[in-house]
Formats: sequence, C-alpha cells, structure tokens
Amino acid sequence: MIKVGVVGGSGYTGGELLRLLSIHPEVEVVWVTSRRFVGKNVSDIHPNLRRFIDIKFTNYKKENVDSVDLVFLCLPHTKSMEIVKDIYGEVKIIDLSADFRLKSPSTYEKYYTKHVCPELLKYAVYGLPEINREDIRKSSLIANPGCNSTAIILGLYPLTSLLEDKIVTIDIKEGSSASGRSPSISNIHAERSHTVRIYKPMNHRHLAEVKEVLGISNVSMSAHAVGMTRGVFATIYVFGDNIPSEKEIWKLYRSKYTEEKFVRIVNRKYPPYNLPDIKGVVYSNFCDVGFRVDKDNNRLIIFSALDNLIKGAAGQAIQNMNLMFGLEESMGLWYPGFLV
Amino acid sequence: MIKVGVVGGSGYTGGELLRLLSIHPEVEVVWVTSRRFVGKNVSDIHPNLRRFIDIKFTNYKKENVDSVDLVFLCLPHTKSMEIVKDIYGEVKIIDLSADFRLKSPSTYEKYYTKHVCPELLKYAVYGLPEINREDIRKSSLIANPGCNSTAIILGLYPLTSLLEDKIVTIDIKEGSSASGRSPSISNIHAERSHTVRIYKPMNHRHLAEVKEVLGISNVSMSAHAVGMTRGVFATIYVFGDNIPSEKEIWKLYRSKYTEEKFVRIVNRKYPPYNLPDIKGVVYSNFCDVGFRVDKDNNRLIIFSALDNLIKGAAGQAIQNMNLMFGLEESMGLWYPGFLV
Amino acid sequence: MIKVGVVGGSGYTGGELLRLLSIHPEVEVVWVTSRRFVGKNVSDIHPNLRRFIDIKFTNYKKENVDSVDLVFLCLPHTKSMEIVKDIYGEVKIIDLSADFRLKSPSTYEKYYTKHVCPELLKYAVYGLPEINREDIRKSSLIANPGCNSTAIILGLYPLTSLLEDKIVTIDIKEGSSASGRSPSISNIHAERSHTVRIYKPMNHRHLAEVKEVLGISNVSMSAHAVGMTRGVFATIYVFGDNIPSEKEIWKLYRSKYTEEKFVRIVNRKYPPYNLPDIKGVVYSNFCDVGFRVDKDNNRLIIFSALDNLIKGAAGQAIQNMNLMFGLEESMGLWYPGFLV
Amino acid sequence: MIKVGVVGGSGYTGGELLRLLSIHPEVEVVWVTSRRFVGKNVSDIHPNLRRFIDIKFTNYKKENVDSVDLVFLCLPHTKSMEIVKDIYGEVKIIDLSADFRLKSPSTYEKYYTKHVCPELLKYAVYGLPEINREDIRKSSLIANPGCNSTAIILGLYPLTSLLEDKIVTIDIKEGSSASGRSPSISNIHAERSHTVRIYKPMNHRHLAEVKEVLGISNVSMSAHAVGMTRGVFATIYVFGDNIPSEKEIWKLYRSKYTEEKFVRIVNRKYPPYNLPDIKGVVYSNFCDVGFRVDKDNNRLIIFSALDNLIKGAAGQAIQNMNLMFGLEESMGLWYPGFLV
Repeated sequence: MIKVGVVGGSGYTGGELLRLLSIHPEVEVVWVTSRRFVGKNVSDIHPNLRRFIDIKFTNYKKENVDSVDLVFLCLPHTKSMEIVKDIYGEVKIIDLSADFRLKSPSTYEKYYTKHVCPELLKYAVYGLPEINREDIRKSSLIANPGCNSTAIILGLYPLTSLLEDKIVTIDIKEGSSASGRSPSISNIHAERSHTVRIYKPMNHRHLAEVKEVLGISNVSMSAHAVGMTRGVFATIYVFGDNIPSEKEIWKLYRSKYTEEKFVRIVNRKYPPYNLPDIKGVVYSNFCDVGFRVDKDNNRLIIFSALDNLIKGAAGQAIQNMNLMFGLEESMGLWYPGFLV
Repeated sequence: MIKVGVVGGSGYTGGELLRLLSIHPEVEVVWVTSRRFVGKNVSDIHPNLRRFIDIKFTNYKKENVDSVDLVFLCLPHTKSMEIVKDIYGEVKIIDLSADFRLKSPSTYEKYYTKHVCPELLKYAVYGLPEINREDIRKSSLIANPGCNSTAIILGLYPLTSLLEDKIVTIDIKEGSSASGRSPSISNIHAERSHTVRIYKPMNHRHLAEVKEVLGISNVSMSAHAVGMTRGVFATIYVFGDNIPSEKEIWKLYRSKYTEEKFVRIVNRKYPPYNLPDIKGVVYSNFCDVGFRVDKDNNRLIIFSALDNLIKGAAGQAIQNMNLMFGLEESMGLWYPGFLV
Repeated sequence: MIKVGVVGGSGYTGGELLRLLSIHPEVEVVWVTSRRFVGKNVSDIHPNLRRFIDIKFTNYKKENVDSVDLVFLCLPHTKSMEIVKDIYGEVKIIDLSADFRLKSPSTYEKYYTKHVCPELLKYAVYGLPEINREDIRKSSLIANPGCNSTAIILGLYPLTSLLEDKIVTIDIKEGSSASGRSPSISNIHAERSHTVRIYKPMNHRHLAEVKEVLGISNVSMSAHAVGMTRGVFATIYVFGDNIPSEKEIWKLYRSKYTEEKFVRIVNRKYPPYNLPDIKGVVYSNFCDVGFRVDKDNNRLIIFSALDNLIKGAAGQAIQNMNLMFGLEESMGLWYPGFLV
Repeated sequence: MIKVGVVGGSGYTGGELLRLLSIHPEVEVVWVTSRRFVGKNVSDIHPNLRRFIDIKFTNYKKENVDSVDLVFLCLPHTKSMEIVKDIYGEVKIIDLSADFRLKSPSTYEKYYTKHVCPELLKYAVYGLPEINREDIRKSSLIANPGCNSTAIILGLYPLTSLLEDKIVTIDIKEGSSASGRSPSISNIHAERSHTVRIYKPMNHRHLAEVKEVLGISNVSMSAHAVGMTRGVFATIYVFGDNIPSEKEIWKLYRSKYTEEKFVRIVNRKYPPYNLPDIKGVVYSNFCDVGFRVDKDNNRLIIFSALDNLIKGAAGQAIQNMNLMFGLEESMGLWYPGFLV
C-alpha cells in the first residue's frame, strides 16, 4: 500500500483526488490538510465521501511527511512551491498547482510571480503520461498539468510536425468547477448558470505550458466559461497551406494513440455523438479527440474534450502516481463516465 | 463469470446498467438488445461506454437466452411481462420495470393494465435488499423497485411501527432522467431546465409498491420534476400525536441500518451538508436518510435522497444480481458519488 | 414623475427593482446606494441595465431623502429598520426586508432579533395588494412580503375559512437567487447546480408572516433549494375531514381572484402545463395557483408558483408603489414571462 | 393598430414573437396557426402567455390573409417559401425562416434545396436594421436574419474594410432553444444539460448569409451547443498583419454604432462583466459587442452576444415591423434583459 498525504484537500481538485484515492486498491490516505476546515471531518465538506474517507482535516506540518510515501499538493500556485521547497527530497511529490510546470524561472515569473525555489524546476517532470511516461516513472517531483493544457496538448501532440508555419488558435469552453471552490460573484450559481463568459481572451497561463511542452510558439488561446459544472472542451483551429487529408491526420493520431488507454479518437457515424462531446468524457479519466478538415478554408479543426477534475487534474495525478510506484497505469481509473 | 443479456439497453436505465456491468469484476455482457438502435454500436448511443462495451445492439430473440445466466429487462412496463412469460424458468431474471412489483393482479390492473401472466407474480421477489435480502438470494425472478419507491421505503422502513394512526404524505422531487430517453415536449432541454413541475399530484404508481411493501395504507404522494438530470429527493411528512423524540427515532434507524452498506443516516453539524442532499448521493448507490422532529407541529419530517438510475434502478439491480449469485453484495458498486 | 431612491441596489432584489423602475413610465430613479460598490456604475454590476440605469452607486446619506418621493429599502433584515427609524415620516418607504412585516415586536424578536423601533411596527402595512389594497393606498410605510410568504398566502387566502381543524403543511422549492448575491460555499455554481437541498426543515421565518396575515396557526413549512435560478413553487398539503369538492374550491378561488390581474387560477387540459409551473410565471409578476382534491386521502393539494424576485419581491414592490401614488396597479408590470 | 397573423406559432420563435406582439402598443394579433396544435389555446402551449394571447391555434388558410396587414412566418425553411409564393403581393410579410435570406437561387440550393419561387428572391430585403434600415422601410417582404448571422454580422460589420487578406474564423456557442421545439435525442434535457457539443464543425448555413451580407468570402465557422437555454455567443478570430490598434477599432465601431439603440459596445473595467456576456443580453433585444487586440499573435478577437430568440429572431422581426409601418424602431422592444 502506498501511504499518501494530501495538502489542501477541501477544494474541488482535492475532493476529486480523495475520491479517486479512496477507491484505489493500493493506496491508504494517511492525512489530509485544510487550513479552512481543520478539525472538521473530510466528509462534512465532501459529503459524497462519507464511508470512504473517514478522517478529519489537519493542519499541514512538515513532520507528517515522514509518515507517507507520497504527498499530493492541491494548493493554489505560489503556495505550492513553499511546501515543495520545504520537503523536496524527503518524499515523492505530485504537485497539482502550476508551480513546477514551466522549466524557465523567467517564464514562470512572467506568467505568475517570482519563483521561490527556481533551482528545483529542473527536477520536476511535466506529468502528462502520454508524452513523458518514462520520465515520470523515475521522477520524485511531478508537475501535474493544467486542465486546459492537457486538452490542448493531447489534441495537438500527434500533429506537432504539421504546425510550423501554421496559425493555431484555441477556443476553450470550461465548466465552473475549474474556477475552484472559493466563492465569488463570478461563480455564484444564479449568475454563472446558463451563460457564456469570455474570462481570459488572451495571455492565459496554461498557454505557457502548451508552448513549452509542444515546442511551438505560434499559438494563441481564448478561454470561455460555459454552463456546466465540469469539463474542458478545446476547439483548436489550425490555418495554413498544405493541411493534410483526413486520412493522413488519422494516421498521425493513430501512430501516437493506438496504445493509449485514456485517449480515444472519436469519429462515429451517428450524431449527436459522432465527435468528442463533454457527455462522453465527464466523470472519467478519458480525453476524447477528433477533427475535421475544412479544405475550402485551409482549416483543420481539432476537438478535445476531458473532465477538468479527472484527466485535467486528479485522475491524471493518479496516473502519475501509478507510474511512479510501478503500478498498472490505469489502476483505480478504469471507469466509464456518465452520460446524464 | 456471470454471463448476462440485457433486453432494452438504449435508454438511461439500460445505459447505467451497462456501465455498471462493464466494471463489475464477475460479469460478462454477452448481448444487448434495442429495437430502436439494432445494428448500431452500443457506444454510438452511450458514448461514455466506448472501450467498455464494444458490441452492437441486437434484436431480442428467445434462443439467445440460452447463452446467458441472467437476463436484465430494461423495458417499459407491459413490455416486460411479455418476455418474462416467454422465458421464466429458463434463466434468472431481473426485471427493472414495474410488471412484477405488485403481488396482486388486481392492484396491478388498477395502476397499470391487465397482467398477461398473473400466475407468475407470486414467484417474483421485490428486489430491495435492505428488506428482502434472503428471499432475493433464492429467487430467480426479481422485481427491481421503482426509484421513488426505493427512496420512500428506505426512509420509512425502520419507522413502520410508528405510522399507524398517522397521516403520511410524501413530496417527491425528481430529476429529468427519471422520465426516460424518449423525447417529448415535456423533457426538451429548454423547457425542462430550471423549473418545478407537478407531474403527478396523486395516484402515482410507485405508491402502490410502497403500500404493499410496508403494509401501510395511510400514505399519499405528490411528485414534482425539478431542475437536475439525476436524483430523487423524498420529503416525507408524518403527522400525529406521540411523535417520538429524535433520540428514539435514531434508535429505530440504527436498529435497521447500522449494518447496511448503502444506507447512510445523515445528521451532521455543518450546513449545507448536515442533512441528506442530492449532491451527496448522485452517481452512487447510496441512499441517504435523515429526519427532524418538529414538535410544535406534531410533525416528523424524513428526508431520503438517492440517484434514480443507480440505487433507484441499475445499481440496485446489480445488488440483487450479487445476492442471487452468491457474490459480495457491494461488488462493483462500492464507489462514492461526485459532489460537482 | 415619482422620484425614487433605492438603498441597497447591488443585490438581485435591488437589480430586479432597478430593472422594473427603469421601464416604469412614471418613475425617475434619482439615486441608488451600495456600500460594496460605491463609485461604480450600476451597470458595471448589473450589465443588463446598460442604457437603462446610467448612474453610479452612492453611499446612503439621510439628506438625500429630501430629493425623492419614495425610498425603497433592499437591505438585509436588521439593517433596514435602522434606516426606517432614521427617515420615517419624511418620505414614503417600501421596505423589502422582513423588518416591518410582523405586527408584534416579540414575534419579530423570536424569529429575528430585538427590534430597534418597535413603535413603528403598527404603522407598517403588509404589502400584499390582493389582501391589503386599500390600506396600502393610504400607507407611507410598506412592508413588502417575503417570496415564500407571497406564494403561500396567495395559495391559501381564499380557503382560510376551510383551514380550521385541518393540518396544513407546506413544501417549498426555491431557486438560487432567493439566497441573495453574497457568495458562499452553498451557492457556488458547481455545488448549487442540479441538486435538492433541505435548507430549512422547520421554523422558517416566512411562516411567521403567513400565520399573522392569514390568522392561522396550524401550519408548518419545510424549504428546499432546487436547481433553478428563479422561482418559488409551494406545494401546500391540507389534511382533514370534509375537504370540499373541486367545484366548491373553485368557487372560493374565483370569489377572491376573478378580478385580480396578477393571480391566475390554472387548470388546463393538456400536460405538461395543466397546473401551475415555474415556466409559466418566471420573469413575470404573476402568481399561478391551482389545486387537486385527493379524496381517498382526505387531502387537498394546492400549488402556487411565482418568480421570487418579481411577484416575490421587486414586482410586488412596484405594485405597492403604484397603489401608494394613485397609479394603475399594473403599470410597468404588465408583461408575460418567458417559457424558455 | 397593425393587424397581424402568425403562421407557425407553436415553436420557441413563434412563442417569443407572440410574447412581443402581445405587449406591443400598436399591434393586434388576429390569428395564429399551428398544424400540431390546431384547436388548442395558444396559452395551453405557451403558458406564459395566459391573459396576453387568448385565442386558439387555427389552420393556415390563404383567405385569412385578407384580414391582416402583416403576416409573420415562423416556419422551418422550405415550408416558408410555399406560403410566400402563395401570398406575396397581397400582404406584407416577415419571414423568419432562411428561405429569402440569400439573393442567389444557386447559393440557396447549395445550402438548402431547390427554391420554389426564385423570382421573388430579389424582392426580399435582409432584415438587419443596423445595415438595411432604409430598404426595410420600403419593403413588403423581409427575410429575417438567422441568430448566428446577426451576432456575426453585427460583430464584423464596422470592420469589413479590415478583413481583406485576413483569416477570419468564428466559434459559435449556442443555447438549446436554437434547435427548436421538436423533441429529439439531441435536445432531451438529461443529455443536453451541462455539455459542449460541436454540432456543425463547418458548412453552417448561416455562414452563407454572413458572406453575402458582408461581401466577404474568407471566413469560416464552427458551431457548438453549450449549456444554456438561450443565447448566441460568437467569438470571432481575425488573423493577419496590420491589425489596427484598439483605439482605431473603437473608432470604427463607434462610427457605425453610436446611434444604434440595440447595439452596445462593451468595454468595462470590472470583471466579470467587462466584456460581452450572455447574462448582459439574454431576454433582451440587445447585441453586445466587444473586442481585444492580441498583438503578440497578430490577432484581433471580437465578441458578440445576443439572445437568439429576440435579437436573433422575434425581436428583430418586431424591429423590422416597426420600420415597415413607420413606427419608432424600438417600440415594444425597449426592455433590459435579466441578469439571473
């Protein structure tokens, strides 16, 4: 059994992680911290976890790290690096914040703030198994990818060779859980229901990850909040001459994803589910990708859909954990989502 | 491995059942029928099941029953009994329709229509494990309970002795998946969103089950459609003299449910999750029950919440299957739900 | 033109009130206060009001009362009475809080807190035009009713004579805007979507109004939050011997409501809209009422539906204003709602 | 009073049109047809219209055209042109279908089907008042624009001169009412809730209108269904060298829209409502437009939001009617929408 501690377990990412850990056959959750809810039962705040996680939130204490094999950090960026600085080397770490996703301290500073332990950045592995599987196995510090980044990178990765000289722009549609569990006027139910809101027209931080991981720069992104609680849907537009045929693009996708358990290439006959759809992935660890070639407009359109809290956060973290501990990669994750 | 066939697998109940079967460690799904979608892949219609159920819908044929140990019937009432009549005695059956839930042919006729095989009613066991566990183990024909009935019966069962001379009335709030996957003007998204609709003010068919199973008659019910896709929330009002104290009621609940894996008695300190809430049970096989005594009004209020497609249908069917085949009752069902 | 000032204009009730005032032909909004947003444009916070209310939020100052004929108070209870104490007698007041709804200081204290100006309670008129029309015309201090109270009272008012010796219990289903615009974990979109939550099983404050206004005491209430942004749906159960026939109850309703512009008795042939439904009233000033007699259970079931922010708050306030200033009662309110 | 008849009044567009007509000070609705619901009260099907439209649905009969000054056609495309062929010249017509939006019969045939009265196409005026106001006043056959087309054209119209040599691609997010009131598996509540679905990746018919009206061809479009009942949000990406500064773009917008009552240019300081948002326009006749210049990526991003049933259909039809009959253009339309 892997003994794990979770720092910051009261939010949606923390809750989803605890949920997945609680049904993982090789894990024991030893402690969970929450500054806001210390002393309360985890299941007071996550009522779905009653009978699955029956411990109380504690305060984070460095010495508790000794009792576990792995620490998950579900903290806001900037808070995470403080703790990594404190415990790096003493325990395996999967950090679900953005603090170790970028290799360059200056890029981190540009998008976030000054890094407190830039010397550790080089030890972190970007935890996208479909790309970095082997490095993840050997790493002791995983930077778990952002939800949008995961959707985008998985949509574009097999096509990277095509992207040079192209224009690439990404339209993100995202559910409300992506903005976290801190109440504010922008996520209050009455105002956040049934709307479309352009919350980040440009300079989205996740784009920095995408550029670094794929090694491309000619890419832009605009992010919208839409009416759902979970899910990221990325519509990726690629413009340029010499867009390959659908057949060739299929080949590229297949060459990378045929063996991937959690990436499905979707191209079915019957609407409404002939292409990726949030309904096909939500509450699961899958990322569904698909595409259309719009020849008349020299346009390739890629669709990538995932659950922001699972494949976009906690599920991917479990995938990383499995790799780090030599377990079957899909252990504890092999579930279909829910259609309704 | 239990070999199963599913008759009527294209609806929401059928889809949920297939989902649960696909992750059950001791089950192999041999065939799935659907008149509407015969020849299509199951996952064309249930896109969440890609990679989990990779077969096509077929037509129902009696001879296919030989290839399986168990048949699930996910058909509308009246269609189900035709098939049971055809195959009873040749294979174990779990019927998710209402056709075998009532013992009396005349009661069935009053609420539904003339029964085509009334002589079989006596062989059917009402598949509510918390009440009929032993009979279910020995039965070869299970009448899987209705979603509202399950919520109501589990809410009232420990208190049956108190109900005599009382007035009992039940206010049901139900999600849209309960009305099935047949499109109609009353479940079209734009009109069914964000509303409360009294769809059955009285004479709800599920009440017949409740009365028969609990052996009470002084109970009435009104059912509302509310703005969610899944879930049944039953608010049960009991009026009368001599309402016991909260302590005594606790005792009654505990006496029945302490050992029950899928019934949780909820009474916590911190709102908003101090009492049963759809958010605590949705996407799981749990039924959460709770209550308050309103002494000033000689009123006892009971709350019972479950997921209509899982504990209210397909999950309960799996529970029954487990019992019928001597498996651990919670096998394939021991998952927490999702908060968001 | 009536010159009005609005104290507390940044919440949902304030926003709805400003919306209605902005299209009222006989009103000029002179000032709007908001402590939280002072200095910002009203339409920064209520983007739907761009081009309709083009002023900034100010701080409340007593001297500004001189510039207006009428002050609306859209404040939380306890804050409102402080201001009424300050300005009563100098200007007409419509108070949308609960502070002047109860006649008895001790009842107020029981449900809320100690009243700061109990001597003024007797001057306040409960602003439900269908009951107190004449008194409202002459009053200078209106206590605008609660949303639940309005639904309940309008549902029960014509039947008051029947209620003696009966058991009356009310099941409330309410939209999220009723809990206001202050963000908290219980109204964050992801958690408040698609649920049913029992937020007030008993002792709801609105019941105090109902009892006082209808002069009955044998009534109880339980309030649920359901998945919609607007609307109150009250299901009222009446139990007892001698429930009259449907015909007789129709007569009672007609005797009170035939001339009422904003109360519709709904009993149509065709489902799903044969009885009151949130979809029929939302975004309008109507209250739809209907009923069914369940003879077998000695039960009368009454349904009452309204929009909590309009007939349950701001629309009713406009109705009261019209009466106080001798205008046509429906002026600025005669609009149908939206079905989708 | 303008006497009007409505052909096809039972859908969402018809219902919204009837709603607006019922509160228009200069209109009398003489008859409404519906094949599906003939003989039923309009308010049986549109319960929100009780007390506003108190007539029954009839069958369409040519002779009834004599009794009215104006006929609105709320029919599916291809059905509409049959009736126009029948009555053109005898009465003024506003056609809300696509049948007369395109000037070229061959383009119509390419996107729809063979036109039955191509000789009439030249008489139709594309009913977008912000562009064709003067022609609308003089016309007797108005082709009311599509909802997406309206959002896109109003977003791009002031910038047309910039678009040459650019790449323009449009990402549409649309609410469920846009797919009409015919029930199908793709708009059933449980499946259509909380999702993002790419329903038309390319070759959307509305694009034909956009190209013809703006006189551009280098434009592509992909349309998504998102989780709301009403609204179109168009995110328009323009790529190319020489994207002007924000200041210059402001000037272009102002030059066209300063005098427009129903187009608002949105650029505010405070999130979440600093840019166009469905919440700012839904339930109103406004189209809100805004933009950002993303210099680093040679990208201009334009946002355009409207209510698909009002400014995208019935409200715009009323605007056209007002112009055709010499009334104030905003008559019966000057209402703010609803934030929640």
